[in-house]
Amino acid sequence: MTVRCDVLAVGTELLLGQIIDSNSAWIGGELAANGIDSLVQVKVGDNVARIESQLRRLLEGADAVIMCGGLGPTHDDLTRDAIAAVMGVDLVRDDAVAEVIREMFAARGRRMAENNMRQAMVPVGASIIPQTRGTAPGLICPVVVNGVGKVVYAVPGVPHEMYDMVHRAILPDLRRRSGDDSVIASRVLRTWGESESGLNERLDHVIEQLDGPDTPTLAFLASGWDGLKVRLTHKAPTLAECTVQLDRWEQVVRDELGDLVFGTDDDTMESVVLELCRRRGLTLATAESVTGGLVGARLTAIPGASDVFRGAIVSYATEVKQTLLGVADGSVVSEAAARQMAHGVRERLGADVGLSLTGVAGPDEQDGQPVGTLYIGLVGPGFDEVRHARLPGQREQMRQFSVITALGLLRTELADR
Amino acid sequence: MTVRCDVLAVGTELLLGQIIDSNSAWIGGELAANGIDSLVQVKVGDNVARIESQLRRLLEGADAVIMCGGLGPTHDDLTRDAIAAVMGVDLVRDDAVAEVIREMFAARGRRMAENNMRQAMVPVGASIIPQTRGTAPGLICPVVVNGVGKVVYAVPGVPHEMYDMVHRAILPDLRRRSGDDSVIASRVLRTWGESESGLNERLDHVIEQLDGPDTPTLAFLASGWDGLKVRLTHKAPTLAECTVQLDRWEQVVRDELGDLVFGTDDDTMESVVLELCRRRGLTLATAESVTGGLVGARLTAIPGASDVFRGAIVSYATEVKQTLLGVADGSVVSEAAARQMAHGVRERLGADVGLSLTGVAGPDEQDGQPVGTLYIGLVGPGFDEVRHARLPGQREQMRQFSVITALGLLRTELADR
Repeated sequence: MTVRCDVLAVGTELLLGQIIDSNSAWIGGELAANGIDSLVQVKVGDNVARIESQLRRLLEGADAVIMCGGLGPTHDDLTRDAIAAVMGVDLVRDDAVAEVIREMFAARGRRMAENNMRQAMVPVGASIIPQTRGTAPGLICPVVVNGVGKVVYAVPGVPHEMYDMVHRAILPDLRRRSGDDSVIASRVLRTWGESESGLNERLDHVIEQLDGPDTPTLAFLASGWDGLKVRLTHKAPTLAECTVQLDRWEQVVRDELGDLVFGTDDDTMESVVLELCRRRGLTLATAESVTGGLVGARLTAIPGASDVFRGAIVSYATEVKQTLLGVADGSVVSEAAARQMAHGVRERLGADVGLSLTGVAGPDEQDGQPVGTLYIGLVGPGFDEVRHARLPGQREQMRQFSVITALGLLRTELADR
Repeated sequence: MTVRCDVLAVGTELLLGQIIDSNSAWIGGELAANGIDSLVQVKVGDNVARIESQLRRLLEGADAVIMCGGLGPTHDDLTRDAIAAVMGVDLVRDDAVAEVIREMFAARGRRMAENNMRQAMVPVGASIIPQTRGTAPGLICPVVVNGVGKVVYAVPGVPHEMYDMVHRAILPDLRRRSGDDSVIASRVLRTWGESESGLNERLDHVIEQLDGPDTPTLAFLASGWDGLKVRLTHKAPTLAECTVQLDRWEQVVRDELGDLVFGTDDDTMESVVLELCRRRGLTLATAESVTGGLVGARLTAIPGASDVFRGAIVSYATEVKQTLLGVADGSVVSEAAARQMAHGVRERLGADVGLSLTGVAGPDEQDGQPVGTLYIGLVGPGFDEVRHARLPGQREQMRQFSVITALGLLRTELADR
């Protein structure tokens, strides 16, 4: 039996856009990886009647619901109350949980605000997912809907507390309930350089072949400044069978798309560039103006970047470009400046490869160049080039597109040789 | 009449967590600012029956629904079909829209894939929100539910296309329908340095006074590495009346929280630090190791950063710390290294203030120091200090906390003088 587990994220701040609900997306990914369907995900505010009503609605269709948020200590944390109402039971204080909360504050040498004891209230009949990182425990709450036994899980909205409880308690519980030992696996091909409709057309005749129960499904995922993803998903009795099908169809897609595919699954343009450098024994340094350090920040987000990445000079002021990177007088948004920056940082930091970015992120034009202008300098063993691009979007979008555009060009240089 | 407009985000990729639905959060923020309630926001996959069913459910309670996504050219773009089913009408090709799409491809010199013509299909009786940035137009679709006239809007999932259509067409249409000229306004106080339960307790007696219809409501918003927000929201016939109440209660909250409040509304720690420097006529340079350029990237995300920020040296390799920043032999994760880096970058880049960060982001410890170790060097007119912090979280979380921790310390130095 395929279990369906929907998600209910609780918090007025989610509806008002002060916080983006990334929790339910993460939960959805984990559920899919465990062969559990998640068909509807809902956000609702801190209103006990509406939380209760949305929970009841989801339980009509789903076998299980994960509620995320509203377990904190304050007056607008109402998830416990809504679950107790749906279960038709009272909330009672769990002395063991209360003691753990007191000890946590004591261990950190912090005074405990009395309202933290709200977090020890538990619906009668629910079991606890012990807290290991925060103060609020999670809950596993059996409910009966139209004579059918279902389950409501509640986890805190703080991401790392939630991740831990989902992995430790909820996924094992759901897999036990499903009894279904079939496996769903997917593979994502990361692409850069073609539009969604263009990819769709190139793959039209592949998609036509993917219409049976024994073939994967294919979907396109627009990921903005991370490029476009092509996702193959397959369900089979074993992971090995999934892998055979995914391997086979990945090759079919790659045959169509060629060099547009820069990686798979967790690969990013950053990780691919670092790996290409690593394999060839090359070190890298960046000179950044328009991106202000973003290329370095993204490269160093990847563990092990220090094998390859020596550092960056963020030459935001013109004078810094001139004194530290040897850029000559004249426009700093130009082919000449990009070339000098790439050479300059390569020498200054003693790297094999120099990558530079200079451009105009806005809001205003600069040196007579419009917003979106980007010059990229690439210097390394066997290449010494400057490329020009005109990027879309406003300030932050333009800067992020600059990162992947520059790294994408460097990837091509490194892969060609 | 207060209009209720819920949101339905369409896309299997949203449920599977391959893309985070930030669109509905943004829409929620815009609706609130226009006095329109948004009480439920739902994500559903690319399945026409389920899209239709969720749309019908939302229309039971809401006066309007904004559907986001599923308007693209590919076979899994099904929003148009679901709306036509709810309206009980056919889809027909709109020749004017088709012509605009053809012209857009021609103007960009790109070949048009024939499936783009799907984007010219419109439910009979719907009106068009003309496309100005992408190829898919938006839709305004009148529907009748239990004898009551309601409206469904459809916009593309691509953020900048969606933003444009919501501002240009949907918000004006909703305000016209509401006839309600009352205003909801909110003010967010940004804090750093105290836990949620601690803030809650400090403000307990303030919250008690905020229980009437003529006072604002108060909520806490945990924002992870952006600190905690305290939001006051007020509804009144005019913006002026809202402002009077918000001003009054902001002062009450500030009196309780003192220096914990670093800004309001759109202020960020970055923008506050830049503004403090600007007012005092100081320029700033950063020397980054553990953050790899993230401080520079976040400072330069703010338009006008170039008044203050001269640049950064990202000294990821030890040798770069030594040759460019004058760091002596010995551990590079130390008080001495942080001080030398701050002095070094200040001199090299000719800035008034030098800020440095060196630490251990993991996954492994370094120089015998555990993951989470951070040393921050701060040097400027009247101060020359190093602070030590032990930060929580894994690699990316630790790096992001490093940014706000370092900028928060610099803010205090600059504000004290």
